[in-house]
Amino acid sequence: MSFNTFGHLFRFTSFGESHGAAIGCVVDGCPPRIPITAEEIQRDLDKRRPGQSRFTTQRQEPDAVKILSGVFTDEATGLQVTTGTPIMLLIENVDQRSKDYSDIKDKYRPGHAGYVYDVKYGITDYRGGGRSSARETAARVAAGALARKVVPGMSVRAALVQIGPHKIDRSRWDWNEVDNNPFFCPDPVQAKFYEQYLDGVRKSGSSIGAVIEVVADGVPAGLGAPVYGKLDAEIAAALMSINAVKGVEIGDGFETATMSGEDNADEMQMGNANKPVFLSNHAGGILGGISTGQQIVARFAVKPTSSILTPKRTVDRYGNNTEIMTKGRHDPCVGIRAVPIAEAMLACVLADHYLMHRGQVGEGVAWPFEKR
Amino acid sequence: MSFNTFGHLFRFTSFGESHGAAIGCVVDGCPPRIPITAEEIQRDLDKRRPGQSRFTTQRQEPDAVKILSGVFTDEATGLQVTTGTPIMLLIENVDQRSKDYSDIKDKYRPGHAGYVYDVKYGITDYRGGGRSSARETAARVAAGALARKVVPGMSVRAALVQIGPHKIDRSRWDWNEVDNNPFFCPDPVQAKFYEQYLDGVRKSGSSIGAVIEVVADGVPAGLGAPVYGKLDAEIAAALMSINAVKGVEIGDGFETATMSGEDNADEMQMGNANKPVFLSNHAGGILGGISTGQQIVARFAVKPTSSILTPKRTVDRYGNNTEIMTKGRHDPCVGIRAVPIAEAMLACVLADHYLMHRGQVGEGVAWPFEKR
Amino acid sequence: MSFNTFGHLFRFTSFGESHGAAIGCVVDGCPPRIPITAEEIQRDLDKRRPGQSRFTTQRQEPDAVKILSGVFTDEATGLQVTTGTPIMLLIENVDQRSKDYSDIKDKYRPGHAGYVYDVKYGITDYRGGGRSSARETAARVAAGALARKVVPGMSVRAALVQIGPHKIDRSRWDWNEVDNNPFFCPDPVQAKFYEQYLDGVRKSGSSIGAVIEVVADGVPAGLGAPVYGKLDAEIAAALMSINAVKGVEIGDGFETATMSGEDNADEMQMGNANKPVFLSNHAGGILGGISTGQQIVARFAVKPTSSILTPKRTVDRYGNNTEIMTKGRHDPCVGIRAVPIAEAMLACVLADHYLMHRGQVGEGVAWPFEKR
Amino acid sequence: MSFNTFGHLFRFTSFGESHGAAIGCVVDGCPPRIPITAEEIQRDLDKRRPGQSRFTTQRQEPDAVKILSGVFTDEATGLQVTTGTPIMLLIENVDQRSKDYSDIKDKYRPGHAGYVYDVKYGITDYRGGGRSSARETAARVAAGALARKVVPGMSVRAALVQIGPHKIDRSRWDWNEVDNNPFFCPDPVQAKFYEQYLDGVRKSGSSIGAVIEVVADGVPAGLGAPVYGKLDAEIAAALMSINAVKGVEIGDGFETATMSGEDNADEMQMGNANKPVFLSNHAGGILGGISTGQQIVARFAVKPTSSILTPKRTVDRYGNNTEIMTKGRHDPCVGIRAVPIAEAMLACVLADHYLMHRGQVGEGVAWPFEKR
Repeated sequence: MSFNTFGHLFRFTSFGESHGAAIGCVVDGCPPRIPITAEEIQRDLDKRRPGQSRFTTQRQEPDAVKILSGVFTDEATGLQVTTGTPIMLLIENVDQRSKDYSDIKDKYRPGHAGYVYDVKYGITDYRGGGRSSARETAARVAAGALARKVVPGMSVRAALVQIGPHKIDRSRWDWNEVDNNPFFCPDPVQAKFYEQYLDGVRKSGSSIGAVIEVVADGVPAGLGAPVYGKLDAEIAAALMSINAVKGVEIGDGFETATMSGEDNADEMQMGNANKPVFLSNHAGGILGGISTGQQIVARFAVKPTSSILTPKRTVDRYGNNTEIMTKGRHDPCVGIRAVPIAEAMLACVLADHYLMHRGQVGEGVAWPFEKR
Repeated sequence: MSFNTFGHLFRFTSFGESHGAAIGCVVDGCPPRIPITAEEIQRDLDKRRPGQSRFTTQRQEPDAVKILSGVFTDEATGLQVTTGTPIMLLIENVDQRSKDYSDIKDKYRPGHAGYVYDVKYGITDYRGGGRSSARETAARVAAGALARKVVPGMSVRAALVQIGPHKIDRSRWDWNEVDNNPFFCPDPVQAKFYEQYLDGVRKSGSSIGAVIEVVADGVPAGLGAPVYGKLDAEIAAALMSINAVKGVEIGDGFETATMSGEDNADEMQMGNANKPVFLSNHAGGILGGISTGQQIVARFAVKPTSSILTPKRTVDRYGNNTEIMTKGRHDPCVGIRAVPIAEAMLACVLADHYLMHRGQVGEGVAWPFEKR
Repeated sequence: MSFNTFGHLFRFTSFGESHGAAIGCVVDGCPPRIPITAEEIQRDLDKRRPGQSRFTTQRQEPDAVKILSGVFTDEATGLQVTTGTPIMLLIENVDQRSKDYSDIKDKYRPGHAGYVYDVKYGITDYRGGGRSSARETAARVAAGALARKVVPGMSVRAALVQIGPHKIDRSRWDWNEVDNNPFFCPDPVQAKFYEQYLDGVRKSGSSIGAVIEVVADGVPAGLGAPVYGKLDAEIAAALMSINAVKGVEIGDGFETATMSGEDNADEMQMGNANKPVFLSNHAGGILGGISTGQQIVARFAVKPTSSILTPKRTVDRYGNNTEIMTKGRHDPCVGIRAVPIAEAMLACVLADHYLMHRGQVGEGVAWPFEKR
Repeated sequence: MSFNTFGHLFRFTSFGESHGAAIGCVVDGCPPRIPITAEEIQRDLDKRRPGQSRFTTQRQEPDAVKILSGVFTDEATGLQVTTGTPIMLLIENVDQRSKDYSDIKDKYRPGHAGYVYDVKYGITDYRGGGRSSARETAARVAAGALARKVVPGMSVRAALVQIGPHKIDRSRWDWNEVDNNPFFCPDPVQAKFYEQYLDGVRKSGSSIGAVIEVVADGVPAGLGAPVYGKLDAEIAAALMSINAVKGVEIGDGFETATMSGEDNADEMQMGNANKPVFLSNHAGGILGGISTGQQIVARFAVKPTSSILTPKRTVDRYGNNTEIMTKGRHDPCVGIRAVPIAEAMLACVLADHYLMHRGQVGEGVAWPFEKR
């Protein structure tokens, strides 16, 4: 996780600013012979694309991805597959309309990175948030489309579970509903409510936070490492690296602080196929930094954007006090668009650890052991 | 963060199992000419040491640290200082009394890593938790004692802010109280209550979770990076890598999900010395992955230990259903001992990013800019 | 040096195959506010470009580089400068004429990587050498153009010093001659000879090896590290990673095996400006893995290409014995084109170590010491 | 290869100075269930140990290694095996006799690292070379003893092939002779000559360089990577990181500069077991950065030590011109002791790449392909 590279064996390096020529990433270390097409990656990107409802920014970007390297036609199957060499995924920026930046050019917007860029680097590409724009996350989603295919049998899904103080009713959780509303919300009743609620937020020129849950099924037991390379530590970093995320939890998360050891214990019993079954999953599928074979469960909080229509006190680059107010495009709940990004990041962490585990341990262990 | 190495430029690699010969770490990349003695490191270790009250495990370990390399006498000052080469910190294990492990040797304890070690590695040093023992964290504390000295003017402190559902009253926060009670609790009234409360937990053979807050003062603006090397992402990984941690948040954390953009905005105004002042710190001192110069604030949840006196269903290494119950030493609230560990981990992340920032950018930028 | 990323703090990740859509690299960790234009990078690329004389491959590629991210106009100077974020350098492939690959598609060319790709990855982009094509080195040269600007006052130059058994006469070394002949040869007399000599090699359908020397002036003392991060170890890796390189030496290199301690010692005496002067430079500017402040000197051997007009025995992908002979474009001495690549790689190593040193140690040490 | 850590997946971090309390290393990422004992590691260390003949330094160190972590008894076999967690290998320093360092304390010895340490770090542990002492290499040998066991069927051997200008006669190469003389020389006739020759060097107070060859048999095809993670690039770094090494070559190395493409081509034909056979091995077992399945062959030059009995001009730490002459222990040919170190370093690179390859590609590819 060095500056702009994510991952160890399965790695991607992203680049690009919001209003530069292009964004994208180079995926390195991907196993060979994985079938992949630009269309498949595009499908994931289209989920993340802005401007699809009135609840996300109206910036119009096709986000069309091209694969510039690292794929070739497999003679045996006729499919385009990865070759084991770096896969360059390029997304050209289209919506670079010449805009008047005179207001934000010099003034720092609260909650944005303008000041820290200036004080760190002495220069900032302020147009549209530059490197800190949510556009960067398209590169993550593109890399994630590859990562999803690395772990056989794995599926990664995310859903929005809270907007403002309003949580979903988990008893109504239906994965099929996630694609039926503009919030990626698995609770159809609450989704209806969010529509009204967010309209109010949007019309008042305000914004609101959200919580996203991301889960992975089909993750084999044994991924991760006991100490600093813990699977949960890397998931935490991956999710916290998404723009505007302020909190991450695994399994029961902060709730465990209030729980007793009795309530938090995940008991085990032998199940089918000589595999153990956990009778609960407070741990979120990870013990001692290593996957247990259960569902991996993580959750994260996304703060409300500070691009709001209320004037706020701030300073400018020259050390003067001033005020700032966002105009134009306005995103009432940036958390919504984090849903496909979270899937991508979790898939990348799991793909990476799958390869690292295979590297250190090989094809794995026959469990249960034979008694001697 | 590769397996057992933490950090990029300021790095440490830890080793050792609970009941092996020794634990410790090698600190690499530490700047030269930093005065350090074993006694200073020992002071931090002594805070972490178990057996200091009836509320933490009764295992008795002196945790005496030796510096085996990387220091030398500075001719100019007569002080022992770092030389820029690897600093080996060794803590020999003393309390390795030959114990009867026959019960846990074969049975997996719920919430412990025994099963995942077996299924990952095919072998487990089960004695006292092996590599997943809380003893490993002594190595972190030792490395942290060096890290604290890397960033000039920085201080890192942590405190326990919640046990079970019982939060402290933040209006009573007094850092001086932290060392006056066995809980590292800054609220003396709540500390009194915790004493009673935990006695009840302990006597009933149960356990309970906790929340710890860790803050850093004196951190210069500009540390971190915009995307995957975000300061908050690395803090999240660092804290999540501590044993039993299930959630991490920065600044207002999960609370931001319920906040409006107006409430969450940290306004700025010019202060003294030509530096900006933030009028609030919802962000926890980090914007866009980069430190703002404000106090860095993070919080994390520690689950209750599952080493409890109630029998729990489990399986053994040979695939049989069975039951397990912890005997002997028993820690009603493992969160307490995470306080000095959190300080060490945050100090290490900040030292590392301080060096990385200095590497990329040098001595920094003159802000505010001159207008042209 | 992980797969396709080179460097630690100053890093670049390259991508692209010979006959794919594009090649290029992402430069990460570059300091901010370094003035750079595509034209400057192009100048270095043009030196590497093939087809400039009859002695290098006739493939015609403009190798036109575009900067897609990581630069912005510095308000203070009006110059385009780096911003500290990733710099994407893209070179589109133009000369992808549809060619008949039926011969090399299935047969392994001796000395080429076809067989090892197949046995490692199970698939190979065989067109023009794929990822192992010399085209990949254009990405290195582009990254090197940035690296050259990272270390203040540093200049990196390379020259060809031997073709086949024919060494230059070092007493005639003239850096100005390097650009006056198609061999980057600093000895004008030997350059004349090489012209004849290589014409003979070319006409006979053969090929021949070469030795290149690369030097850096203006490198401050103190870069590198004592053990595995040795400056010379990283230079060795950097140069050995260039296509067809089979040997690397620092300073007097293999010659030192035959030398006595007396002859090899570089004596020191105090010079001007309170700096020591070395009376010789057998060490090539590096002692104990750390730069001495002298000129850094390295040399490497490039094998002859095995793309020759003589039929050679080989096998095909299906396990059959066969023969192969190169047709068409043919490069009698691939070593020639390694000259600008070597400059780029050395510049990258030095830029990287300059940043790492500054990270660990800061602005440096006042030497000589004051006696107490 | 960051400062004091070597390797990617199979990694070791070394520590310790010549006259400090101890040296050693932490091996991380080692596969689990590899049988290992301290005795086995000791056997390799004993080959490196000084003072075994009059041709190497007379410093007496038992170099007794202890395994402090990362091993456990395998219930199934009763053997002590690796557990997959960090393996701490500690070698205490014994021969720290209080010596008079007044001469070298302030004066820089030509060819030694004293000056560059001072100018980099501002402080130097000058006793016995500190971190740059050949003692550090004992840690490498210890790590190598583990690495040797990672790649099934691999064996790594090294031999001295040249002292001063005197090469061995390769037609007399006999691996069994390597342990029969104090030079690790495979040519018994030349070994006899070296005895006389080095006695002369030693008695005259001089020193001389050497060339070592290191080979690995049983390395599977497919290890390495095409660009910066090339197997040969990493071998070059590994060998160049050994003290006093000034040149490295793979296969025919610098000789290839003088060769024609015809002479350098390694032709292939199908052999037994459906595997190709190379008819020669000019490439040293590596093509395009990836192992071919042939013997891996590397060679490196070791400079003569500059610890000689002739006075040399130098400067001191305070900027004064002076003279220095080595007294006491004196090593006429430090290259000799590099033989077991080279074996260890090559084994570590190969173990690391074996794991990385397995991580990315899994259990590998069925070659030859079936034709469609």
